[in-house]
Formats: sequence, C-alpha cells, structure tokens
Amino acid sequence: MEIKLLFVSKTKDFWVHQGVEHYRNRLRHYAKVTLLEVKGAKALAPVAGKTQESERILAKMDEGCFWVLLDERGKQTTSVGLSQSFQKWMNQGHSQFGFIVGGAYGVDERVAARANWVWSISQLTFPHQLIRLSLVEQLYRAMTLLKGEKYHHP
Amino acid sequence: MEIKLLFVSKTKDFWVHQGVEHYRNRLRHYAKVTLLEVKGAKALAPVAGKTQESERILAKMDEGCFWVLLDERGKQTTSVGLSQSFQKWMNQGHSQFGFIVGGAYGVDERVAARANWVWSISQLTFPHQLIRLSLVEQLYRAMTLLKGEKYHHP
Repeated sequence: MEIKLLFVSKTKDFWVHQGVEHYRNRLRHYAKVTLLEVKGAKALAPVAGKTQESERILAKMDEGCFWVLLDERGKQTTSVGLSQSFQKWMNQGHSQFGFIVGGAYGVDERVAARANWVWSISQLTFPHQLIRLSLVEQLYRAMTLLKGEKYHHP
Repeated sequence: MEIKLLFVSKTKDFWVHQGVEHYRNRLRHYAKVTLLEVKGAKALAPVAGKTQESERILAKMDEGCFWVLLDERGKQTTSVGLSQSFQKWMNQGHSQFGFIVGGAYGVDERVAARANWVWSISQLTFPHQLIRLSLVEQLYRAMTLLKGEKYHHP
C-alpha cells in the first residue's frame, strides 16, 4: 500500500512537524508514505489564493490513486468506519491512497469534484496544521485496526 | 472569565505539550487559564483505572463552575456554535468554565452525570493528548469569535 499526503505549504510550527513525524513514522510500518507539499499562495487574496492552490493540488492528483479530500463539507466517519472504508477500497483493487489537506482558505469545487471521497474530521473548524496531525494519527489508527492490533480501544 | 483545564496525567510527548502551551498562551489574553492535572492510574486494569481516575476528577469538580466533559458520547457543535454556547452560559451568569479530558480509557458515568454539558469533538476516536490540543485551540477560537476578531474564517 502507498499513502500520499498532499499538503499545501510546509508545516510552519515545529511542534506540528514533530507530531506529524511521530505518527508518520508509525504509519510507515504499514505503508509506503509519501509527503507531497505544494506551495501556498499566501500573498494573494483568499479567492485567488484558493484557486491557485487548488490548481497546484489538481496537478498532483494522478490517475490510479484513490483521492480523499479532507473538508468540512464532507462526510464524517468513526475510526472503525475509516478502517472498514480502507478495506472496501482495497477490495475494489485500490492500493494507492492520497489524502489532501488544503490551505487556510480550503480548496475549490474542482478538487472536491475530482476526489473519490470527501471526508470531514469534525463539525469544528480546525487550523489545517492540526488537521494534518489528526489525519496521520487516524491513518495510523486505521492500519492498526485492519491488522487487529491493540492501539485502538473503543 | 476563568477557564480550568482538567486533564488526567501529565502531557507525555513534548510536541503535544508545546502545542497546548502555544494555544494556552493565546487563550490567556481572554481568560485566566488554570491547568489542573490529576494523576493517571496506569498500573490498574482499565475498569478499575477508569474508576480511580474518575474519582480524582470528581474531587476537582467544584460547585460554581460550569463543567464540560469531552467525550465521544456527547453532542457535536461547530466552532461558531461553541462560541454561541459560551455567550449563552455567560448570559446565565457563569464565569468559571471547566473542561475535562479523561485518560486513555475515558471516564465513568458519574463524571458525565455531574457535568453540565458533554461535548464530542468528533465521531473519530483520538488519543487524549490530541483531544487536549484540539480543545485549547477551539477555546482560543471561541474567544476570538466572541470578540469579533479575525482568527476564524468559515
């Protein structure tokens, strides 16, 4: 299995970087993990910036990969539900999975339309840096659930 | 306003500690923030440990404070909804708010029954360390929303 993490701009705060690496290193026991960072468009106005960042994301969304966009407009799931979705996608023949976290202003409709699934982590609005951290922890958790390992207790 | 953060055991990972401090320092501009840590009961079996930790929590839940328990069984809200709840509680005369994050095995029914509100951050199961981090960020976000400041953009 390969997991691609597609993020807008580098992780700014060192503690977020350390947290992402903490779970990414654990996730590496289960999958090849590739970090794809596209440049943020901070100098532009929100709408123009979102458009430019979305184009950079779309350019990375190659065929053959199952793309999941993290976005508040998406569907929620439990951690067990996420692991079951992984199982379903693998049964459908997928082995490459990409998870997209946009920038501060989110992504435009084209990215949502191109994604295979749009996933909302919470009704709450979180900084995209905390979404990255939550994402890698949940991916690690899903892998341990698929393997029947002890990390998750309900 | 006073905000009490009632956590079970010290924050283990340094990057989580740094993240919590990052948002706690911002939150301090809006409220007195008190960190209350009760000892974890790691050596015990899950159920006995949960009972012991819950008793330590109950001992800290003083009268006059509006207590919110973070628990997956609770209700979800948006970030704007949280700020509106704060406004409502303040209008009811509350000025002390306590937020409880249990240990790895959660808390027992007595804590949920004693709490004024039970709040679920997400359908997903997160480590309690990441729940602490999400909590302080959301509290800071709620304060900026109450003040009409620019941090949150929908």
